[in-house]
Amino acid sequence: MKEFELIKHFFTEQVVKRKDVLLGIGDDCAVVASTERQDIVVTTDTLVAGVHFPLETSPKAIGHKAVAVNLSDIAAMGAKPSWLSLAITLPEVNESWLAEFSAGVFDLCEYYNVQLIGGDTTQGPLSITITAQGLTPEGKYLSRSGAKAGDWLYVTGELGDAALALQHYKKQVSVNPSFVDKIHAKLDYPKPRVLAGQSLREYATSAIDLSDGLLADLGHICRASNVGANIELNAIPLSDIMTKTLSFGEAVNLALGGGDDYELLFTVSEDNKVGMETALSHVGTPVTCIGQINASKTISTTLNNKPVPINSASFEHFSSN
Amino acid sequence: MKEFELIKHFFTEQVVKRKDVLLGIGDDCAVVASTERQDIVVTTDTLVAGVHFPLETSPKAIGHKAVAVNLSDIAAMGAKPSWLSLAITLPEVNESWLAEFSAGVFDLCEYYNVQLIGGDTTQGPLSITITAQGLTPEGKYLSRSGAKAGDWLYVTGELGDAALALQHYKKQVSVNPSFVDKIHAKLDYPKPRVLAGQSLREYATSAIDLSDGLLADLGHICRASNVGANIELNAIPLSDIMTKTLSFGEAVNLALGGGDDYELLFTVSEDNKVGMETALSHVGTPVTCIGQINASKTISTTLNNKPVPINSASFEHFSSN
Repeated sequence: MKEFELIKHFFTEQVVKRKDVLLGIGDDCAVVASTERQDIVVTTDTLVAGVHFPLETSPKAIGHKAVAVNLSDIAAMGAKPSWLSLAITLPEVNESWLAEFSAGVFDLCEYYNVQLIGGDTTQGPLSITITAQGLTPEGKYLSRSGAKAGDWLYVTGELGDAALALQHYKKQVSVNPSFVDKIHAKLDYPKPRVLAGQSLREYATSAIDLSDGLLADLGHICRASNVGANIELNAIPLSDIMTKTLSFGEAVNLALGGGDDYELLFTVSEDNKVGMETALSHVGTPVTCIGQINASKTISTTLNNKPVPINSASFEHFSSN
Repeated sequence: MKEFELIKHFFTEQVVKRKDVLLGIGDDCAVVASTERQDIVVTTDTLVAGVHFPLETSPKAIGHKAVAVNLSDIAAMGAKPSWLSLAITLPEVNESWLAEFSAGVFDLCEYYNVQLIGGDTTQGPLSITITAQGLTPEGKYLSRSGAKAGDWLYVTGELGDAALALQHYKKQVSVNPSFVDKIHAKLDYPKPRVLAGQSLREYATSAIDLSDGLLADLGHICRASNVGANIELNAIPLSDIMTKTLSFGEAVNLALGGGDDYELLFTVSEDNKVGMETALSHVGTPVTCIGQINASKTISTTLNNKPVPINSASFEHFSSN
């Protein structure tokens, strides 16, 4: 029982105190204020040790990633994150583990002014479930379903580094030692595109965050919007590390099929291209146009504008999601 | 991957379609509407197989209980449950297990008009985390912290049956075969006091749901309200099964120290006693006055108005929570 007091200690002392949290941690429920002018977005993601992160992952990275993957979903809705509920199942209470884990959680919460409003701590195999909430002006949220034929297809940042790190971790690829820390930081400490998502609210017709991989997540947009898309493979933004470590074909396949990038994939009408690019440059987020939406209801790829077949492994991933 | 399609099937087809759910399952987030005149209450509870329910528990009971324990927290706030996020970690995808589990979840959701708005399905050791939300008129929620010296202490229903069922399951007590199904139904299918909680909003000064046991949960109220309390042991409502199976002392100890009752414990001022009793009888919820709040900052017990010491085992449970 003393153990639970210890856990409480780590999760009740936080810097963020939002005005819209009327009652925080410590009662049967938290209470938050709502207003007419805002919609609330809600997402839940679970990370299971050994499934969603290698068992050796540092506790701080686990805490960071558990929050980041949820904030990434909120970013994809164009919303501003506000409140977090954290359910953690632990095999044992380990003070230094908890200190590091909670630092990982709270660093990101403080950066985005997100308040932990509740949760549950239970004993069992390590897993973390976070429910995160965010706010958008009424009726202004982004979804997967607004893409139209002719819209341009964009991604933020660069793709594939996290998947490369996972391959490196699994000893499936050799990576120059000077690159190792950088790609593992991409896998362990993904940066949710929170500001970019809010900027996109005025411009994008649809958006999703890249967790399953480019083809799979583009498939989600195409199905929800009842459209198709073409990706120009030469346009996919790849890091220097990717191009120096892999052949072009390997790198593109990793960008298409690998997950865990937590960049945003979104569509913009011709009329909003310039406005969007200006807005995103104001928040310092690099974006790249990688293709265009069409009416075909399938996903195709071109290389220098010539059709090329989608790698069969990647395509399976897409088709089954 | 096909497996995830299967899981989706069980959780996306639901009867409840609330007007305030602007976007349900299937996007990066759900979107719900908020209004000026309401506060939102949020709670998260995890059930781990083998810790929070015996491994042999039926999937339907697990689904029911996972929802019920969360709705019970919402009831204790005087709120009306509205939305649910469900994160489930499963060792394997088993169609009949999922069918039964989701029936347990949705039966309760339909009864209380609660909509499942999202979640996550992952592979790993069985555990369920639910985040439930509810609504109260602005500023009208109940908490643990409003009890005042002189207030009367009440509970809904009868206490101890669920703890008796757990003892029976662990073969620590023998129970008449004709009672077995009844007490196990109390353990496996707790009924959250949702309507009673909402009725109490106008009358109670504090409230909590009984999950840890009467003494432990009264301790939470006393600490949060900075008061003490006396329980009259003869007043504790016990079922016929409890009184026929156990001695009076054993039964009272189980009611004081056993958990999992999911009844409401609440305090009412002298002026609101009659009003509260009338309101609760209108929703068909039996209530019993079991004691009174005082200024002592400790919990005491009396038997027929004579002080008796609190059973040391129960007291340890209380003191450490």
